[in-house]
Amino acid sequence: MSNVKVLPVLEPEIEPCCPPLNERPLTAEEAERTAVMFKALGDPVRLRLFSSVASHEGGEACVCDISDVGVSQPTVSHHLKKLKEAGLLSSERRGTWVYYRVEPTVLAAMGALLTKAAST
Amino acid sequence: MSNVKVLPVLEPEIEPCCPPLNERPLTAEEAERTAVMFKALGDPVRLRLFSSVASHEGGEACVCDISDVGVSQPTVSHHLKKLKEAGLLSSERRGTWVYYRVEPTVLAAMGALLTKAAST
Repeated sequence: MSNVKVLPVLEPEIEPCCPPLNERPLTAEEAERTAVMFKALGDPVRLRLFSSVASHEGGEACVCDISDVGVSQPTVSHHLKKLKEAGLLSSERRGTWVYYRVEPTVLAAMGALLTKAAST
Repeated sequence: MSNVKVLPVLEPEIEPCCPPLNERPLTAEEAERTAVMFKALGDPVRLRLFSSVASHEGGEACVCDISDVGVSQPTVSHHLKKLKEAGLLSSERRGTWVYYRVEPTVLAAMGALLTKAAST
C-alpha cells in the first residue's frame, strides 16, 4: 500500500463566489461559476429530485428513497450526480447506497445573490 | 360592445409559486414553472447581461447600454428577451430602444425558495 500515490482532488470551483447581481456586472469567470449552479436547478426533473432530497426525513435521501418523480432509477442517479457536481448536494456512501444531502451554504449563497439584488 | 366576451388572459405562469425547496417535493407543475426561472440564469452570458441590467444606473438598461459582454447586439437582445419571458425582467419601449428592468418580486421569490431551504 505504501507505493499508492495520493493525488490532490481537483474539486470544481463551486463555492459561493459572487456579489449580489445588482452590485456590478459579473466577470466572465464569475458568471461561468454561478451559471453552473442555476443551470443545475433549471431542469424540472432535477428540481423535483432536489426538493425530494431537501424535504426528506433527516435532510438526506438515497436513490432508493425516491420513486415518485416518474423517472427510472438510473435517471434519478444521473440527475443527483449532476446536482452534486454543481455543488448543491453532497453525498456519502453507506453500504449499498449513496446518500445525498443538501449543501446549505451553497443554497444560502445562491439565495443571497438573488434576494439582495431584489432589495434595491 | 355588450356581446364581446372577455376571456381570461392566460399569462405564462411565472409568478412566485412554490414552497421552499425543503418543505415538500414539488409537484410536476410547480417544478416546470420554477425551472424556467432558474434555467434563465443558467447561462453565463445571460447571467452577465442580467447583472449588467441589474447594476446599471437607475436599475434599468437597454441593449444600447450593454456592450462589454463580448457578444453582438442581436445576441444581447435575444438573451434579454429570454430573461423577460422567464419573468426576471420587464421591458418598456421608449423611442428607438426597449429598456429592461429587473423584476424584484420574482427575484425575491426565487431567493426565498433557496434561502429558506438552506436554513434548516
